[in-house]
Amino acid sequence: MTDMRPHEVFVPTTPPEDAQLRYIGRIHTPWLDRKECPRRGDPENGPDCRIEVFEPWVPALKNIETFDSIEVLYWLDRARRDLVIQNPAHTGDVRGTFALRSPNRPNPIGTSLVKLISVNGPLLTVRGLDCLNGTPLIDLKPDRCAFTDKPRSGE
Amino acid sequence: MTDMRPHEVFVPTTPPEDAQLRYIGRIHTPWLDRKECPRRGDPENGPDCRIEVFEPWVPALKNIETFDSIEVLYWLDRARRDLVIQNPAHTGDVRGTFALRSPNRPNPIGTSLVKLISVNGPLLTVRGLDCLNGTPLIDLKPDRCAFTDKPRSGE
Repeated sequence: MTDMRPHEVFVPTTPPEDAQLRYIGRIHTPWLDRKECPRRGDPENGPDCRIEVFEPWVPALKNIETFDSIEVLYWLDRARRDLVIQNPAHTGDVRGTFALRSPNRPNPIGTSLVKLISVNGPLLTVRGLDCLNGTPLIDLKPDRCAFTDKPRSGE
Repeated sequence: MTDMRPHEVFVPTTPPEDAQLRYIGRIHTPWLDRKECPRRGDPENGPDCRIEVFEPWVPALKNIETFDSIEVLYWLDRARRDLVIQNPAHTGDVRGTFALRSPNRPNPIGTSLVKLISVNGPLLTVRGLDCLNGTPLIDLKPDRCAFTDKPRSGE
């Protein structure tokens, strides 16, 4: 436990075993170290990033190109999972984990809304990510707003 | 495989074992059957729902009451995980799984933005969910918009 900041609180935990995830792809970004990652992705002016979808999931991308904005879920595989109180700015202004978007959380899943620039086979180019290069992908969804704006047949 | 609709495509899969989740609470809603669930939660006019956070995670709720809007992640434990092409309206207008917000996906994680009404110990009252009663909770985060609107000390 070398990465604790003052005033942080962790809890003893047993191994997580309630449900299991499958990595369905990998995210390629310019950031090789956590310190380099932006605090928050910028869908307008952030750098282009690549999302690579693995087989057999590539056919599940069908129609995704019709959305301008998609939600990306990824697994923050270097995060701590036992912190309940965190001291993000090292100031003693501590907060509960659920009042932070820190990567350190009991289930370290990141969510970002990104702008979809292009789709080329298994590769998506997007803007608005903030995660490390090599982060495992766990889901892609249409942005809930974009999705409900579309008219549906029969309505 | 009794729950396939025409034109849907599934893929053979091995057991998922890349990362493991821990259920950190349970969601209480009025909906007891998938057919009853609304297509989409309504943070303004939807019914009040309860989120119960389990120990030892209750201290991680500290400061969450300062947010009006929070993001809820949950595990859609009755979903299929092998569908790549789906036929959501039974019309033959098939779509890829990643172009749908269907519960059926390789990692069946639901995300909702909800309005936070109150916090009482381990119980949150929220509006805007659309999931089944008893759905396992996996994460709570401040809404990314609400979060970045707050001024931070030292900036």
